[in-house]
Amino acid sequence: MNRADTDSTPLYDPALGLAGLPSAPRWESAGQRSLYRSDWVSLDLIAVRPPTAPPYEHHVVRTANAVAVVLEHPDRGVLMLHRHRFITETTGLELPAGGIDPGEDPVAAAVRETAEETGWAAVRPRLFLTRCVSNGNSDQLFHFVHAEVGEWLGGPESPDEGPAVWVRHEHLRDVLGRDLVSCAPSSLGLLHAMTFGLLRDGAAAGSVQAREQG
Amino acid sequence: MNRADTDSTPLYDPALGLAGLPSAPRWESAGQRSLYRSDWVSLDLIAVRPPTAPPYEHHVVRTANAVAVVLEHPDRGVLMLHRHRFITETTGLELPAGGIDPGEDPVAAAVRETAEETGWAAVRPRLFLTRCVSNGNSDQLFHFVHAEVGEWLGGPESPDEGPAVWVRHEHLRDVLGRDLVSCAPSSLGLLHAMTFGLLRDGAAAGSVQAREQG
Repeated sequence: MNRADTDSTPLYDPALGLAGLPSAPRWESAGQRSLYRSDWVSLDLIAVRPPTAPPYEHHVVRTANAVAVVLEHPDRGVLMLHRHRFITETTGLELPAGGIDPGEDPVAAAVRETAEETGWAAVRPRLFLTRCVSNGNSDQLFHFVHAEVGEWLGGPESPDEGPAVWVRHEHLRDVLGRDLVSCAPSSLGLLHAMTFGLLRDGAAAGSVQAREQG
Repeated sequence: MNRADTDSTPLYDPALGLAGLPSAPRWESAGQRSLYRSDWVSLDLIAVRPPTAPPYEHHVVRTANAVAVVLEHPDRGVLMLHRHRFITETTGLELPAGGIDPGEDPVAAAVRETAEETGWAAVRPRLFLTRCVSNGNSDQLFHFVHAEVGEWLGGPESPDEGPAVWVRHEHLRDVLGRDLVSCAPSSLGLLHAMTFGLLRDGAAAGSVQAREQG
């Protein structure tokens, strides 16, 4: 029986937003216990009551929120780092990014991380996106900041993060489509900035051109 | 001193790919010890040697790889779930998604999760993207599968995951731009599918239209 054509699943209506939809069933939490605690990663078990299923204990990973930076030069494009990641044994291009210190503002963290990892000042920084990294098992938020490249500050602090490279606006689709960006946050930040016109003309032009080819 | 105009940072060259860039310094790992182990989440400390900094122990969260599904109806758009997430106290639209069982193929997992969470069969499934969720502290990979909606199978298994809703192609930008999608994997999967022309005409049309408005 194919019911796709007689389907009663509602359609999203932009005029109503989420309020126009059947409501999301609420999962209640009732206390937690700590399994492991450190300055970098903590692990808790939260007692949770799903709306209809029996209560149970759910693991939650707690790490500092993080921020990634789309640092733009009008002609040279977006600054990325060529990085090796030992945890996943992957090598690829990433946006400058890092953890937000306790009490630190995400935009201030973006400027700090950019200076530390690339040696460049990030000017006119603006938070443009926040997403939950993995909301089924982690409380971490990932913020995304757009900034323009400013002065050379004399960094980076360490060569271990990997060398910086400019990716021209018209090549952003290339690095994303060829899987040269292995980490989800860097892919997401670039795609969102490209889709919502946060980058200069080159990005939009490259995107239209490539879609017309496809 | 503004050195942006006399900058020696290399430019990415699509003809050479990563091979045209200064190489990514390699971080070597040398053994690990377990801090916590469970069927759902494990936590290890890996001994790591950065290229120039002193060796240290780095936390690594280990969870099963996961998959999200862009399930498409030619007219109704993409199937999403209206979900509450107690860990982040967020409510929003998400792609059907879930963990991959031991030994399970990502595409098979996508079909299974779609049936469990929405009650729909996913046909002609195709893996289109794999990304590291957070490669600085987790080994988890997130896979993304595109599929066409098939038969109604009589589910979902539980109402706790939240009600399904179709988001028409021309409204995908709206839900992403209005922050009605709170989780990073759902945002990433949709943006990648939209950008690389994996969805039917409506998505590309909506995307072009909205960019011209912006």
